[in-house]
Amino acid sequence: MSATSGKGGMGDEVQKNITATCPSDRIPGGHKPLLRCIVKLGGAAITCKNELESINEEILESVCVQLREAMSESANFSTGNVVSMDWSKRLGKPLISAPEEFRNCRSLDLDSNFIVVHGAGSFGHFQASSSGVHKGGLHLPLVKAGFVATRISVTSLNLEIVRALAREGIPSVGMSPFACGWSTHGRNVASADVSHVISTLHSGFVPVLHGDAVVDDLQDCTILSGDVIIRHLSQLLMPNYVVFLTDVLGVYDRPPTDPHAILLRKIAVDEDGNWMIVKPKLQHEKMGVEITVAAHDTTGGMKTKISEAAMIAKLGINVYITKAGTPHSLRALRGEVDDAPDDWLGTLLTPLADCLRSRV
Amino acid sequence: MSATSGKGGMGDEVQKNITATCPSDRIPGGHKPLLRCIVKLGGAAITCKNELESINEEILESVCVQLREAMSESANFSTGNVVSMDWSKRLGKPLISAPEEFRNCRSLDLDSNFIVVHGAGSFGHFQASSSGVHKGGLHLPLVKAGFVATRISVTSLNLEIVRALAREGIPSVGMSPFACGWSTHGRNVASADVSHVISTLHSGFVPVLHGDAVVDDLQDCTILSGDVIIRHLSQLLMPNYVVFLTDVLGVYDRPPTDPHAILLRKIAVDEDGNWMIVKPKLQHEKMGVEITVAAHDTTGGMKTKISEAAMIAKLGINVYITKAGTPHSLRALRGEVDDAPDDWLGTLLTPLADCLRSRV
Repeated sequence: MSATSGKGGMGDEVQKNITATCPSDRIPGGHKPLLRCIVKLGGAAITCKNELESINEEILESVCVQLREAMSESANFSTGNVVSMDWSKRLGKPLISAPEEFRNCRSLDLDSNFIVVHGAGSFGHFQASSSGVHKGGLHLPLVKAGFVATRISVTSLNLEIVRALAREGIPSVGMSPFACGWSTHGRNVASADVSHVISTLHSGFVPVLHGDAVVDDLQDCTILSGDVIIRHLSQLLMPNYVVFLTDVLGVYDRPPTDPHAILLRKIAVDEDGNWMIVKPKLQHEKMGVEITVAAHDTTGGMKTKISEAAMIAKLGINVYITKAGTPHSLRALRGEVDDAPDDWLGTLLTPLADCLRSRV
Repeated sequence: MSATSGKGGMGDEVQKNITATCPSDRIPGGHKPLLRCIVKLGGAAITCKNELESINEEILESVCVQLREAMSESANFSTGNVVSMDWSKRLGKPLISAPEEFRNCRSLDLDSNFIVVHGAGSFGHFQASSSGVHKGGLHLPLVKAGFVATRISVTSLNLEIVRALAREGIPSVGMSPFACGWSTHGRNVASADVSHVISTLHSGFVPVLHGDAVVDDLQDCTILSGDVIIRHLSQLLMPNYVVFLTDVLGVYDRPPTDPHAILLRKIAVDEDGNWMIVKPKLQHEKMGVEITVAAHDTTGGMKTKISEAAMIAKLGINVYITKAGTPHSLRALRGEVDDAPDDWLGTLLTPLADCLRSRV
């Protein structure tokens, strides 16, 4: 059983537009890794997918609390003493006046070497699919208008996620890929000024990127998915680990709605991007993994996700796919499930070499 | 009577990070100028300055309608047939479903070679001033939190302005300076990847930038004002003209609340940035121009505005300062008031050479 990315070419891609030739050269103090973790907040997890432009506030808040807990340097983490960094009016909510509470604070006590990337869920998809932004043709008024409408929708979600993170005391800043100069060539990343992302991390902020409408030099424009962004950032920044938070426990051998669906706990990925299921042992060696691709999902759904995740794992990076807002997601965000222990529910994609080593 | 910019150094600044060595080389078709106009939407005009995070919806809408009218290539401009490019839900408003109306549309009929830059008004100022972001010190939790809070506030205003422009059929896209890699050195622009702004214009979109919290390589962080952004963009892109839309008719010889205040109609700026009032003839040759700087205005208020405007005019670019939402602002946005005619109320800052030529 094997699969390679259908997009190809990324592995050989020239690393364009990256100012730091070796990111570790620029780490202040030289001790901490430049990047501990890239987290994907799946669109299906943080939005109500069937209700246009509706955020799943409960899950989003829970994800933000867990992210803060994973970043916390203090042994006695408490959810009680969080001071918000969002000092804005919120519709229907009283104004939070927090500046005074930061005045005597000596440190934020956060290891915030994280990048957050989120999907669109019920934001942007309607606008993109009804105008065909992913198919290109920016000279057509419909596509141009759809491009603008898509960006308005996804950037409004981005702002809400930045605010939710800031409310949990995480120094988050929105970095919208189109505005930051990300563009594609035949839907693969062609240029991305990752130096801004690096300098934002160096300043102690958590960059928050998202799937976006971008310019494509072959077909005028397209949709750049959050998963492709993560693969590109992983190649350039080599995070310690990558976490995909979704609305299901992980990758199954068939649609998770099927009562016989089996959660794939551990997948080994070799250096060519071929992958095999290590755990559990499946009965039929050649049994295919059925994959559902949601209708209206212009970025490819779960199939893209596995391919992209495999492309990251082949770089030597552990990738965890698990359900947002569960004890399993907290453990993944902390980087505590290196070997997919039995009491952890999720899918670990791990480099084959590490997998073989752990069997010795 | 003369004044030079208090900030200095900008005129000699190396033009960093601009990919296009000569922007006109990259104009599609080679006929239209790359950039017709940079418009500043003053914070005081588009927000209710004394009410935290409150937009002056009426003025903003009127500015957007005028901008569309100024961009319109059609002789019979009509406000009736506008199709919105914002296809999002708005709180309290019904969903606008516009894609179908664009399907049979062959052209947008817009000369949209404009850049919009807006101030913060009642967005961002409270967050910045209560934490001292403009004074630097990002290692302090208060300043870091204030930086995050300021950006949330100004980017939420940016999103609302992009939406307001899109509702008027203007293909607008938000480009947040911090996220796009703008940074400063002692509060002057140190780097700005203007190539993204250029490629956005080339794709037929209207970039919408704003005053923002940015990283400063001398003092960690600061506030980059919209006026400084406009000066920098003007130097690099040489627009045909620049328009500042404010909440007063223009620049006065004393605070406009003073019943004896005289509107300065025309100011000539020489190549060194020295300026003199040409119209009206004032009684006392050496009479100083009193300037009010609003309290809590962390970016310098009107004094900065005149200095920045003079620095633009000295490049050979006409600068109009006028009141938003008036017949005068529409004429300025259309570029129809080259010589500050008597029936136009506003302040024109014009290169001295042009001024002398028009007297011959």
